[in-house]
Amino acid sequence: MFLGIPFSLYYCEDQCFNLIYSGLISSSMGLMMWFFTRKANKKIMKREAYLIVSLAWIVISLFGMLPYLISGAIPDVTDAFFETISGFTTTGSSILTDIESLPKGILFWRAMTHWIGGMGIIVLSVAILPLLGIGGMQLFVAEMPGITPDKLHPRITATAKRLWLIYVGMTFVESVFLMLGGLSFFDAITHSFATMATGGFSTQNASIAGYSAYIQYVIIFFMILAGTNFTLHYFALQGKLKKLWYNEEYRYYIFFTFGFAVIISLLLMHEGATDYEKTFRDSLFQVVSIVTTTGFVSTDYLLWPAHIWIFLFVLMFIGGSAGSTGGGIKIARHILLLKSSSLELKKMIHPQAVIPVRYNKKPVSEEIIHLVLAFFMFYLITFFFGTFIMTWLGLDLSSAVGATISSLGNIGPGIGSVGPVENFSSIPSVGKWFLSFLMLLGRLELFTVLVIFSPSFWRK
Amino acid sequence: MFLGIPFSLYYCEDQCFNLIYSGLISSSMGLMMWFFTRKANKKIMKREAYLIVSLAWIVISLFGMLPYLISGAIPDVTDAFFETISGFTTTGSSILTDIESLPKGILFWRAMTHWIGGMGIIVLSVAILPLLGIGGMQLFVAEMPGITPDKLHPRITATAKRLWLIYVGMTFVESVFLMLGGLSFFDAITHSFATMATGGFSTQNASIAGYSAYIQYVIIFFMILAGTNFTLHYFALQGKLKKLWYNEEYRYYIFFTFGFAVIISLLLMHEGATDYEKTFRDSLFQVVSIVTTTGFVSTDYLLWPAHIWIFLFVLMFIGGSAGSTGGGIKIARHILLLKSSSLELKKMIHPQAVIPVRYNKKPVSEEIIHLVLAFFMFYLITFFFGTFIMTWLGLDLSSAVGATISSLGNIGPGIGSVGPVENFSSIPSVGKWFLSFLMLLGRLELFTVLVIFSPSFWRK
Repeated sequence: MFLGIPFSLYYCEDQCFNLIYSGLISSSMGLMMWFFTRKANKKIMKREAYLIVSLAWIVISLFGMLPYLISGAIPDVTDAFFETISGFTTTGSSILTDIESLPKGILFWRAMTHWIGGMGIIVLSVAILPLLGIGGMQLFVAEMPGITPDKLHPRITATAKRLWLIYVGMTFVESVFLMLGGLSFFDAITHSFATMATGGFSTQNASIAGYSAYIQYVIIFFMILAGTNFTLHYFALQGKLKKLWYNEEYRYYIFFTFGFAVIISLLLMHEGATDYEKTFRDSLFQVVSIVTTTGFVSTDYLLWPAHIWIFLFVLMFIGGSAGSTGGGIKIARHILLLKSSSLELKKMIHPQAVIPVRYNKKPVSEEIIHLVLAFFMFYLITFFFGTFIMTWLGLDLSSAVGATISSLGNIGPGIGSVGPVENFSSIPSVGKWFLSFLMLLGRLELFTVLVIFSPSFWRK
Repeated sequence: MFLGIPFSLYYCEDQCFNLIYSGLISSSMGLMMWFFTRKANKKIMKREAYLIVSLAWIVISLFGMLPYLISGAIPDVTDAFFETISGFTTTGSSILTDIESLPKGILFWRAMTHWIGGMGIIVLSVAILPLLGIGGMQLFVAEMPGITPDKLHPRITATAKRLWLIYVGMTFVESVFLMLGGLSFFDAITHSFATMATGGFSTQNASIAGYSAYIQYVIIFFMILAGTNFTLHYFALQGKLKKLWYNEEYRYYIFFTFGFAVIISLLLMHEGATDYEKTFRDSLFQVVSIVTTTGFVSTDYLLWPAHIWIFLFVLMFIGGSAGSTGGGIKIARHILLLKSSSLELKKMIHPQAVIPVRYNKKPVSEEIIHLVLAFFMFYLITFFFGTFIMTWLGLDLSSAVGATISSLGNIGPGIGSVGPVENFSSIPSVGKWFLSFLMLLGRLELFTVLVIFSPSFWRK
């Protein structure tokens, strides 16, 4: 919060000290918590890990909404909490109808919630979730030196620092590129925060639609980086570029992202689009934005014919790469489920053949496939349940489906009344709390939160 | 076809001999095929089995549409084929806008397509699919004496005859009950055909909505029977009633059907419905009709609030029991997937525990779970792909989703413009052929058809 103070003062409008107050409250609370627990038993078991991770996101959101409340930028607690957890979970769904009217310090804090959330996610997905064995993460990202799926390695802090350095570095580089394109330092840094965290909060009401082609391409490029497994960045920076291509998820990620962009461009041209470059750029932008679960918007895709935007809707169920800041089901899980399924088709002809599912050329254990299947099933059930709740609260089917998958997948915009040029302000209060819960659920890969609700969690 | 002649003559309107012509053409073609292949090698391998099953449904539909075409009741080939395969796959989607205007002989044939389709499905799902190992069927229905998942047992014909006897018997009993309620012999028998096959073609434009409460309860009862695993009927008739309760799928089937009916009734009453009996009857009727994939309609559920009919929409993804005439994913598959998934939640707390998935109290092999997973994945992919195709053909999202799941699940009515009081006449021709393909795909449990399109099928 203190980092936003320079912007508060430089652009000082009516209120300039809200972030200072919020920062002081939060840090004094933090100091108190540290003081009273500093001598407590630090031994963390699996159960504690689940609780700590889930509570961390909730507690940080409760304090994170202080700037909105104190400044009066978002006077309502429900709205403020929604906007904050939407930030920390890198979702990017907003209840704000006029973003540009907010004080710059508050907007900086809003972008900052993304960036902090993204930092948390990188460590969580690369270091902690694989150790907890959540949804097959151990297979997808446990390649980083210092990370072993067996035990909490002491080098976990070193790993985290390395990944954060990459994260900070890429944010910096993107900011420079955006400034070269004419953005102010403030706009450049807030958009970089939102990009690298695959968040999607913009400081502009029109999101990215009002920016130049150059700016859009820069953001596309960095969204792709943000949706990539961060351990691959680490290897790439070490010059081990072969590791990238050897990674199946990365290959599919790049191939399908561009593939879908080309298909959508062609379909749009078939429907009469004449500006080829802009059509391709818009298609690519939207596909990348949704696959990486960033949620930036360069054009209102709901104005496209239904059979075209339905592609984007289906992509909402895909998600970014495991170990990236992207949310959703994740590409690696889809690969595994599809491989396992197609194998059965093969076995129908050759029933005697014993063919294991392979990922990155290595055979995959049954246990991992079960974990991935479980993840997928709970994801679908949560999606259906969420859609039901949202229709109950009065949303039409499209909007209910859109709001649910957008929140659960940490995307941002959905379809229907929560489409790309709309926002979540019209959702009833109960709905906002429910969607906040879905964001948390999706961001923490379901199981981290769900396990807390299972009876065996509380049994000795 | 010849069976319909009495009705053609008794109710003789303008044309009375169409069924005779159609029957003569079909039977002479059949005789020719028999004559030229009677000395051929009869050894049937797995590959041949897949082809025979898939082609059987297509060939029977090509001849089955003759009465419609010759009588001019449905002059268009696309429409006639759609109506016929919708019958034989026991789907019950119709392109007819005024059913009551058709000659009675033709309507009898229309109901007959259901009944023949249902006969085929019973043998297919109880005897043939388990042998082929399609989607885990060997686990769900391979309990019948004479059926072993290992080889084509010589007693397969005896088993088929036994099951058909039950099927014919129940059809007869239902007809009697319907006639006791005041239906004519013609209406009683056609509706019994449609019920027992979980088809859903009615001879009335209003489907079942215009009939008395008694008739509706009779149909509800027999729909429930038709959606039950037929091997359980066999055991029940032998007095082994314990087998029913011991069967997990049956327990869930009964429990959830009534559970959902109660929930929907309560929600409707909460919305202001005052006629409690009718509300419960309508809810139960629609739930049973959709879970069993019959598709009869007693009320326009799309007039209910969205959060209520969304229950019915979700139920479209459930399907009947394995080994019944019902279509869809099947309850047993859902049970298995959910069990396997919840187990992972338990394992997160007790990682060292080795707990196998159990079905009917017996541990389930990994292979079965993989087969079921594969079935589920291909089902979802087909659903998404189908929805895309239908939106491409100009349907809005609701209608596209509705038409796809209704066809793939062999249900009948969907949501949107193919809702309960609508029909499929407005779908473009290409769409009708595509939906016909989906009906076949769904009816033959996907893999039987899909495997034919896989390259390894055609390799030596």
